[in-house]
Amino acid sequence: MKRIIIFNLIIWTILISCSNETNKSPLAIQTDFGRKDNAVASMYGVALSVNKDLKVYDLTHEIPAYNIWEAALRLEQTARYWPSGTVFINVVDPGVGTERKSVVMKTKNNYYFVTPDNGALTFVAESLGIEEVREIDEAVNRRENSEESYTFHGRDVYVYTGARLASKQITFEKVGKSLGTNITKIDYEKARFEDGKFFANIPILDIQYGNVWSSLPRKLMLDNGVQVGDILNVRIDNNNSLVWTGNVKLVNTFGDVPENDNLAYFNSELNFSLAVNMGNFSERYGVYSGAEWSIEVVKK
Amino acid sequence: MKRIIIFNLIIWTILISCSNETNKSPLAIQTDFGRKDNAVASMYGVALSVNKDLKVYDLTHEIPAYNIWEAALRLEQTARYWPSGTVFINVVDPGVGTERKSVVMKTKNNYYFVTPDNGALTFVAESLGIEEVREIDEAVNRRENSEESYTFHGRDVYVYTGARLASKQITFEKVGKSLGTNITKIDYEKARFEDGKFFANIPILDIQYGNVWSSLPRKLMLDNGVQVGDILNVRIDNNNSLVWTGNVKLVNTFGDVPENDNLAYFNSELNFSLAVNMGNFSERYGVYSGAEWSIEVVKK
Amino acid sequence: MKRIIIFNLIIWTILISCSNETNKSPLAIQTDFGRKDNAVASMYGVALSVNKDLKVYDLTHEIPAYNIWEAALRLEQTARYWPSGTVFINVVDPGVGTERKSVVMKTKNNYYFVTPDNGALTFVAESLGIEEVREIDEAVNRRENSEESYTFHGRDVYVYTGARLASKQITFEKVGKSLGTNITKIDYEKARFEDGKFFANIPILDIQYGNVWSSLPRKLMLDNGVQVGDILNVRIDNNNSLVWTGNVKLVNTFGDVPENDNLAYFNSELNFSLAVNMGNFSERYGVYSGAEWSIEVVKK
Repeated sequence: MKRIIIFNLIIWTILISCSNETNKSPLAIQTDFGRKDNAVASMYGVALSVNKDLKVYDLTHEIPAYNIWEAALRLEQTARYWPSGTVFINVVDPGVGTERKSVVMKTKNNYYFVTPDNGALTFVAESLGIEEVREIDEAVNRRENSEESYTFHGRDVYVYTGARLASKQITFEKVGKSLGTNITKIDYEKARFEDGKFFANIPILDIQYGNVWSSLPRKLMLDNGVQVGDILNVRIDNNNSLVWTGNVKLVNTFGDVPENDNLAYFNSELNFSLAVNMGNFSERYGVYSGAEWSIEVVKK
Repeated sequence: MKRIIIFNLIIWTILISCSNETNKSPLAIQTDFGRKDNAVASMYGVALSVNKDLKVYDLTHEIPAYNIWEAALRLEQTARYWPSGTVFINVVDPGVGTERKSVVMKTKNNYYFVTPDNGALTFVAESLGIEEVREIDEAVNRRENSEESYTFHGRDVYVYTGARLASKQITFEKVGKSLGTNITKIDYEKARFEDGKFFANIPILDIQYGNVWSSLPRKLMLDNGVQVGDILNVRIDNNNSLVWTGNVKLVNTFGDVPENDNLAYFNSELNFSLAVNMGNFSERYGVYSGAEWSIEVVKK
Repeated sequence: MKRIIIFNLIIWTILISCSNETNKSPLAIQTDFGRKDNAVASMYGVALSVNKDLKVYDLTHEIPAYNIWEAALRLEQTARYWPSGTVFINVVDPGVGTERKSVVMKTKNNYYFVTPDNGALTFVAESLGIEEVREIDEAVNRRENSEESYTFHGRDVYVYTGARLASKQITFEKVGKSLGTNITKIDYEKARFEDGKFFANIPILDIQYGNVWSSLPRKLMLDNGVQVGDILNVRIDNNNSLVWTGNVKLVNTFGDVPENDNLAYFNSELNFSLAVNMGNFSERYGVYSGAEWSIEVVKK
C-alpha cells in the first residue's frame, strides 16, 4: 500500500514536470532596440529567469526608433500566424516613464499583447477583436529591485509580466484592473471605393525588395469589378502632390511580367501592391510610406 | 489488476508526452528577407502553429536579395555542423509563383532541404550526396486558406511543409512525387591544378572582416607540394583583367604576421584565403566575390 | 516482484528523459560575426550536435569587429539578468590562433563564461566575483576532426565546450587546469568624486537612440548630494579637448522635459547619462564613446 502511494507520488511528479513543456505559451518580442546592444538579450534573460523552459522568440527588433505606426502595422501583419495563447510583447515606447498606460490586451482568439497603450494596438484590436484590456499594476507586476530604473519598462515590466503570463505564473486577471475594451487608437484613413475609383494609403513598404504595399484590400477590388489581368491606372501622391502615375497590369506573381517591368499584385497580406520584377519600385520612383502617402487606382 | 492497467496507461501517456520533445528535428531557416519586417516572424508563427514545441532556428536572413549563388554557398558552409535529421528551409526565391519547382531534397546523411529548385541545392548536393528529391505537392502541402496568396511560398508552403516533416506529422514520402536525384544546378568552374598553377574562383568574402575566400581546397594544394610557411604568388582577376597581384606567406593564423600585413591562410572551410591581419583585404585592394572573380596561385 | 522491478525501470527511464529538459542550462552567445554569413549558424549547429535539446540564445553578434572593450561591457550589462547556471560564450577574438589562452570563468553566482582570455572578462569579474578560472584543454575539449582549422575557435572550441558544460556532459573540472582567479584585465579609469566634481568616462553609447552613457554610478552621485531635479553642469572631453559643455536637468525619464530638450538621467544600468527627448544627443553634439572620452559633472 505504501509502495503504491510512493508510485503515485513519483508519477505525479513526472506528469507535472513533463506537462510543463506543453503547458507554456510562446513569448514573442517586438522592439525598436536593434540588436547592436544588450537590451534585447537582457529581456531574454528576464524571461528565462521567470521560467527557464519558456520559449522566447523575436518578431523584429528593427522597428524604426519611436515609430508607433510601424509597430502597430507589424503586429497586425504577424500575429495571426502564431498559435492560440501566444503572448506578444511590444516595446516601442517613446513615452516610457510618462503617464501613458501599460496594458495587456486579450483578443477574442486568445492572444495576449503586452505593450504601452500608445496606439500600437490599433490594428490588431480591429482585426482580431478585443476580449478585455487590463492595466498592468506595477506595484506587483514588476521585476524585483527594479524600482530605481525608470527608462526600461520593456525589461522591468513588460517582458517580466509577459513571461509570467506565458508560463501561467499569473492569470490574466492578476495583471491589474480591467479597462474594458478601451485602448488608445491611431487615427487613419480607411481604404474606400467611390465614383469608380479606389482610394487608400501606403502604410508600409516591403522594404527588403522596395515593393510598395497599399492598404487597399483585394476583396474590395474584386467586389468592385477588378480582376487579375486588368490594366489599372495608378496615381501616388505625397501630401497631395503627384509623385508617380502610370498604367500597370494586375498579375498573380512577379514572373508574370518581364524583368524590370512594373507590375501590380496582391501581396502576402492580400492588399494591392506595386513592384518591379527583380527591381526596386520604391527607389525607382521615389515612393515611400506613411500617413502622408496616398494612392488612387482606377480600372482602365 | 485494474490498477496495473491504469498504471500502464498513465506511464504510456507520460512516455509519449515526454518523448515528444526528443522526437522532433530542428528546423533551420535561411532567407533573403532581412529582419526589418514581419516576414521571418510570420514563418516562425506558421512553424509553431504546426507544432508548438518545434525548435526553430535562424541560419541567416541576410542573403542579398535574389542571390541564389550565395544562398547555395551558405547552405553548404553551414549544414554540415547540424545534427542528423535537421530540416533546412531556404527561401531565396526570385521565381516565386513561376514554374520553378518546390522540392524537398533528402541527403545521404539524413538532412532535408526544403527550397525552390533554382540552383540553391548545387553545393550541398555535391558535398553531402542526394538520397532522393521529391516535388512538394501543393494541393496537400500548403497552409490552410493560403490559396489566394501567390507571393509568399516561404510562409505558405516551405515552412509549413518543413515544420510538418520536422515534427513527423508527414513522412518524406508524403511530400509529393519522387524526382529521383534530379535537381537544378548552377554552372561554375571548379578549382584545378595545371602546369604548376592553381586556378579557382572567389565565391564569397568573409564579409565582416573583409577576408577573401577562394574555392581552392587545402587538400589540393598540400597534395601538390604547397606547405604552410611557403611564399606564394597570387593574382586576382575580375572578368580576366588584373585587380591585384602580390606575394603572400601562407600561415596558420592571422597572428603569425605583423598587424597590417597581408597573409594567406586556410579558412574555417579549409579553403585558400587572403587577409590583412587586423585589416580588410577586400577594401584595401578592391577585391570582391562572384562568378567573374578568379584567382591564380603559384608557389615561388 | 519482477513486475515491480520493471515498473521501476520504466519510471526511471521516464524520469531521466523528462528531467533532461530542466537539467540543462541556457547557452547564450556573443560574437563580432554579424549575421550576414553562416558563422553564427555553424556555432548553433555544433551546440545542437552536442545535444539536440539544448537551448541556445543570442546576446548580440554585432560587437564591432575585434572590439574587446565593447565585448567586455556588453557581457557585464547583460549577464546579470540571466538565470543561475547560464553558460555564456564570447567570441571577439582578434588573437585567434596566437598564444592568448582560452578559458572558462565560473563566477560566484554560478555563471560560466567561455571566452578567449583577452580582457573580455574584466567587468563581469569585478561585478560578479570570480569563483575559479580554468584553461580549456584543447586536446580533449575540441570538436572532432577540427584540428586542421586554426581560425574559428568559436565553432571548434568555445561553443563545443560551452555546449558540453551546459548539457552536463562535462563538469567544470573537466574543462582543463585551474588558473585560480587569474584573468587578463583591461586597464580603465574608474569613476570618482573629487573636490566637488564627478569624473568618469563614456564607455558606450545607447546607440539606437544616440544617448550617451557614462560610467558614473547613480549611488556615487546620490551619496554626494545630487538629487533628481538638480541642474548639473556637464563637460565632455575627447583626448582632453572640450567637445561639449552645458547645463542639464537631472530627471527621472525622458518625458519630464519638452521634446528636443537635453536631459540627464540614470540609465537602465543606473549610470549617469545624457539624452535629447525624442532626439539624438550623440549626433547633435558629436559625442561618442571609448577610453579617450571623459566626462565631468558638477552640481550648480
